[in-house]
Amino acid sequence: MSMREKALSLHKEHYGKIGTYSKVEINKKEDLGLAYSPGVAEPCKDIYENSDYIYDYTSKGNMVAVVSNGSAVLGLGNIGAEASLPVMEGKAILFKEFAGIDAFPLCINQENVQHFIQIVKALEPTFGGINLEDIAAPDCFVIENALRKELNIPVFHDDQHGTAIVTLAGLINALKLVEKAAADSKVVINGAGAAGIAVTKLLLSLGVKEVILCDSIGAIYDGRTERMNERKEELAARTNPKGITGKLEDVIEDADVVIGVSVAGSITKEMVQKMNRDPIIFAMANPVPEILPQEAKEAGAKVVGTGRSDFPNQVNNVLAFPGIFRGAMDVRASEINEEMKLAAATAIADLIEEHERHPDYVIPSPLDERVVKVVSESVSQAAIDTNVVKKKEDKLSVSTK
Amino acid sequence: MSMREKALSLHKEHYGKIGTYSKVEINKKEDLGLAYSPGVAEPCKDIYENSDYIYDYTSKGNMVAVVSNGSAVLGLGNIGAEASLPVMEGKAILFKEFAGIDAFPLCINQENVQHFIQIVKALEPTFGGINLEDIAAPDCFVIENALRKELNIPVFHDDQHGTAIVTLAGLINALKLVEKAAADSKVVINGAGAAGIAVTKLLLSLGVKEVILCDSIGAIYDGRTERMNERKEELAARTNPKGITGKLEDVIEDADVVIGVSVAGSITKEMVQKMNRDPIIFAMANPVPEILPQEAKEAGAKVVGTGRSDFPNQVNNVLAFPGIFRGAMDVRASEINEEMKLAAATAIADLIEEHERHPDYVIPSPLDERVVKVVSESVSQAAIDTNVVKKKEDKLSVSTK
Repeated sequence: MSMREKALSLHKEHYGKIGTYSKVEINKKEDLGLAYSPGVAEPCKDIYENSDYIYDYTSKGNMVAVVSNGSAVLGLGNIGAEASLPVMEGKAILFKEFAGIDAFPLCINQENVQHFIQIVKALEPTFGGINLEDIAAPDCFVIENALRKELNIPVFHDDQHGTAIVTLAGLINALKLVEKAAADSKVVINGAGAAGIAVTKLLLSLGVKEVILCDSIGAIYDGRTERMNERKEELAARTNPKGITGKLEDVIEDADVVIGVSVAGSITKEMVQKMNRDPIIFAMANPVPEILPQEAKEAGAKVVGTGRSDFPNQVNNVLAFPGIFRGAMDVRASEINEEMKLAAATAIADLIEEHERHPDYVIPSPLDERVVKVVSESVSQAAIDTNVVKKKEDKLSVSTK
Repeated sequence: MSMREKALSLHKEHYGKIGTYSKVEINKKEDLGLAYSPGVAEPCKDIYENSDYIYDYTSKGNMVAVVSNGSAVLGLGNIGAEASLPVMEGKAILFKEFAGIDAFPLCINQENVQHFIQIVKALEPTFGGINLEDIAAPDCFVIENALRKELNIPVFHDDQHGTAIVTLAGLINALKLVEKAAADSKVVINGAGAAGIAVTKLLLSLGVKEVILCDSIGAIYDGRTERMNERKEELAARTNPKGITGKLEDVIEDADVVIGVSVAGSITKEMVQKMNRDPIIFAMANPVPEILPQEAKEAGAKVVGTGRSDFPNQVNNVLAFPGIFRGAMDVRASEINEEMKLAAATAIADLIEEHERHPDYVIPSPLDERVVKVVSESVSQAAIDTNVVKKKEDKLSVSTK
C-alpha cells in the first residue's frame, strides 16, 4: 500500500481518530441519579458559589481545545474548517497519547478574526487550555494576542511556538557541539511568517545578540520601508543590530546558524560555503527542505536539522506541545510565557547528554518517552518562578498517563 | 454519606466525568506519520474535494455537541455556563453509555441569542448533531429554530422534545389501559414553558383534537390578549377548539388527561375529582411534582407519572435522546422532525406489552437495555420515510456500543 492508501485506511477504519468516554460507570439507577439529575445539581451549586470548584468537579483542568479555522493547514493552504478536521483530531490524540491530556478538535467555520476570537472566548468554560493550530498569518498573531489577554487559561499557537521551541532545543545542542556561545553567534532566519517570527523572538529571549530575520526580499532592518508589517516593524527594532541589508545570499556571510522556515530550495550550497566555521542549518520547509541535508553537508555544514522524519534531527512539535500543556495545566498556569518556552527548549536539549551529542543527534526522537516528563516539570517550575500560577498550593494532581 | 456528599465525591474522584481517547495507536514513527503529518494530509485533501468524506475519515458522524449557555439549569435557574458544565458532562456520558455516541460538553459563555446562534453554527464542522440543553425560554425556541434552518445536522432541544416524547410514550400506554382513543381525549397541559409547548405540539402531531394549554393565568385560547407571546399565539390558533376559558381548576373539568410541566402543588385532589373517568396524570415538576402520586390516586387517578425515579412511571429523557440521535445519525438525517419524534414515542411505548401494561408500568425503566435499539430503528425508519436522509444508500455503520 502507498502512504496515501495507508493513511486513508487508518482514518476510515474507525471513522476518524477521536472518541469520548465516561470516567464513571452508569449501571444502576443510583449512578444515574448521582452523575446526572438530581445529584449533579450539587457540583453545579458549588461551582456557582465559587468558580474555582470547576477544576475539582469537571474535566476542565485536563481538557484542551485544538482550535482551527482551517486557513493554513499543513502545506495545503486555506482548505477550510471541515477539511482541517483530520489534522485537529490527530493533534488531539497526540495530546492524549503523549501527555494524558484530554483534547478535543474544534474546527470553527469562521474566517473573520474578531468573530473567531469571540467564539473561542465564549468556549472558555469547558477548557483548561487552548491550542491554536493551522491559522494563517497575520490572523494567527491577532487571534493569539487577543485570546492571551482575554482568557485566564493558557493559549498557545503551536505552529509558531512549538516549532520555535524544538528548533531552539536543537540549536542549543548544535552550538555546544561546535563550541560556540548562543550570545555571540550570528543567526539568520529565512522566512518571516508565523514560525519565523516566533523563532526570532525566542532567540532574543535566549540572549542571542545578532539575529537577522529575512523575508523573500532580504534582511529586515530598522528603517526598511518595503513590504513591512506590524510584526516585521517590531522585530526590525529588536534585531539586526548592525543594520545589515541585502538578500539572504549576502546576509548569510559569516553566519553561524541559518534557520529556514520558508520554501524548498531557498538555501544553496554556495550560501552554506559563505558561512562561518562549522555551519549549523535548520531547513524546515515541508515536505522538501530549503536545502537537503546531504547537500548542506557537502558544502561544509556541521549540523543539519529538518522537519522530516526520514532525516536526522527532526524538528517535530510533538516534542514540545504535550509537555508544555501538561506542565502549564499541572500548576494551573494562566498563560505560557517566554520563560516557560525557554524552559521547555532547554529541557528537550538537556535530554541528550554530552557523550551522546552528535551532529546527527541534537534533537531527541519524537517517541522518546522521557520527553513529556522533563518538559512538563521544567515548564511547571518556570510558571511558578514567573508567578503565572493561579493556585500554587493546590497543584492539580492529574496523572500524566 | 448524604446524596450531596456522594455526588460531590463522584465528581471529584476523577476530576469530572468525561475524557477523550484515541481510536488509533501511536507506537511507531510510522503511526505518527499516518495519523498526523504527513499522512493526515490525504484525508484532508479528499474532504476538501468532497465534503461528504468527512463522514468517512473523521469522528463527525458519531459526535454530538451537548450545548448550553447555562441559563436554565435543572431547577437552579440561570447559573451560567461554567456552573452548568457538570450537567453537560453528565449528558455527554449518557449519550456514550446508552447509545455509543461520542458526545462533548460545550458550555458557551454567551447569553446574546444571535451571537450564541452564530457560535454554534460555526462549530458545525466537528459535529454530527447538536443537543441543546438547559437554555431558558423563550431564547431556546429562537435558537433551536434558527439552528435547525441553518445547519445540515440534527438539532434537538432535549428539555422540550425529550420530555415531550417520553410523556407521550407514557400517555399512549395509559390511554390503552383505560381504553380511550387519543383522538377523542381531552388533554389539559398546565405550563406553557419550553416543555409544555413541545408536549402540546407533539399531542397535535399525534392527532389529539382537544388539547388545552394553560399558563399561570389559565387556558390559552384564540383571542386571549393577556400575557401572550409568539408561541402562545401560535398554539392558541391550533388548540382549544371549543375556546374554553378559565383557570386550570375550571378547564380540568371532564379532562381525560392532565399533564403538569409547571410547579409543585399546582394540581389539587379537588381538580382530579372533576376529571373524566380514569384520570391520567403526568405531574412532572421537579423535585416536587404538581401532585404527589398517592394523593392523585386517592382522588381517583388511574395512572400517574412523574419526573422522579422513586415513583412509578418516571418520565426520564434518557429513554429518548440516546436512541433518537443514534437513529438520526445512523442514517445521517439532516434533522429530527415530528414524525421521528412520534416514532420514538411509539417505540418506547410499545416496549411494554399488553400483558405487562399496568397503572404503575406505562413507561419502561430508564435502564431498560432494549430501549435504544427500538427507538433508533424506528427513528431511522421515520427519517427515511419522511425523506430527510442525506445519503440513504450508504448507511453509516457505526456500531451502537
